[in-house]
Amino acid sequence: MAFTTEQQPGVHAPTADSEGFVLNHTMLRVKDPAVSLAFYTRVFGMSLLRKLDFPEMAFSLFFLAKLDTHEQVPEDIGARTVWTFGQRGLLELTHNWGTEEQADFKYHDGNAQPQGFGHICFAVPDLAKAVAWFDANEVTFVKRPDQGKMKDVAFVKDPDGYWIEIVQPELNANLGR
Amino acid sequence: MAFTTEQQPGVHAPTADSEGFVLNHTMLRVKDPAVSLAFYTRVFGMSLLRKLDFPEMAFSLFFLAKLDTHEQVPEDIGARTVWTFGQRGLLELTHNWGTEEQADFKYHDGNAQPQGFGHICFAVPDLAKAVAWFDANEVTFVKRPDQGKMKDVAFVKDPDGYWIEIVQPELNANLGR
Repeated sequence: MAFTTEQQPGVHAPTADSEGFVLNHTMLRVKDPAVSLAFYTRVFGMSLLRKLDFPEMAFSLFFLAKLDTHEQVPEDIGARTVWTFGQRGLLELTHNWGTEEQADFKYHDGNAQPQGFGHICFAVPDLAKAVAWFDANEVTFVKRPDQGKMKDVAFVKDPDGYWIEIVQPELNANLGR
Repeated sequence: MAFTTEQQPGVHAPTADSEGFVLNHTMLRVKDPAVSLAFYTRVFGMSLLRKLDFPEMAFSLFFLAKLDTHEQVPEDIGARTVWTFGQRGLLELTHNWGTEEQADFKYHDGNAQPQGFGHICFAVPDLAKAVAWFDANEVTFVKRPDQGKMKDVAFVKDPDGYWIEIVQPELNANLGR
């Protein structure tokens, strides 16, 4: 029998009611989209699938994906919006207009008090190579792989200070055992 | 030529340096994992891929995926951990042991001040049917599809108060235009 789920208190088997549900995106507010877009597209190789503007509410949304090289993204804007909302694992950045011009404006990273959201995480094929790439791009580290209790895991910061975990999957086969 | 990215200030084309990077997960701290697991597995049909315990640091991690019906998840625990870290678009819930027993303990949702993280989002095949399913499960709404300025979009709350956006992709072809 194929694996479906680990059994823990609270866990239910999925039913037909949630068939077709897709975990589409995580939304983070960003101070300056030009800075954040440079970071996520250059350092993490993400593509900007759609920018959506809402002038009457003075904000814009940016939908980013780390695409597989074989993925076919529709050219047509309407079709691309629909395609975007149906994908798994996107990053949505929200820009409330004007924050980039306020010198002391800062979003909350969720790890300082009050805590809640912790981080996003990228898997990478080669952790050492990724660390060198982040250093070459002057990315700020929260924790390098050899620091702290969890070896083989790094944490870096995005331009707003949100934490990004970096893991190389095969180094972590025995994690938590 | 296939679509790669929208052009906006800051956007770079991906390079070989980020080849193989995968946006693996988003981490949210939860007060009571039994309550959160019941919610995400029953209401959203997610599967618990791995629970990882860290007794020396007094926390556990729960990795959840909304699996496609055809996905093959490894049975073997080590192989399943590696597979889990290589997937796109998972939800990681962190439980700091003991919070579930503190009556007034509460995590910060990121939408009250101080703001930062906003929400996660599920795409659903039928918004009206999903709303009925959430009502049948007594899920709390932040906004129903007919409320507010953005029609055809709902927001519900998870047990810790984190917001979950609900969209039906094809209803949003003209969003932000």
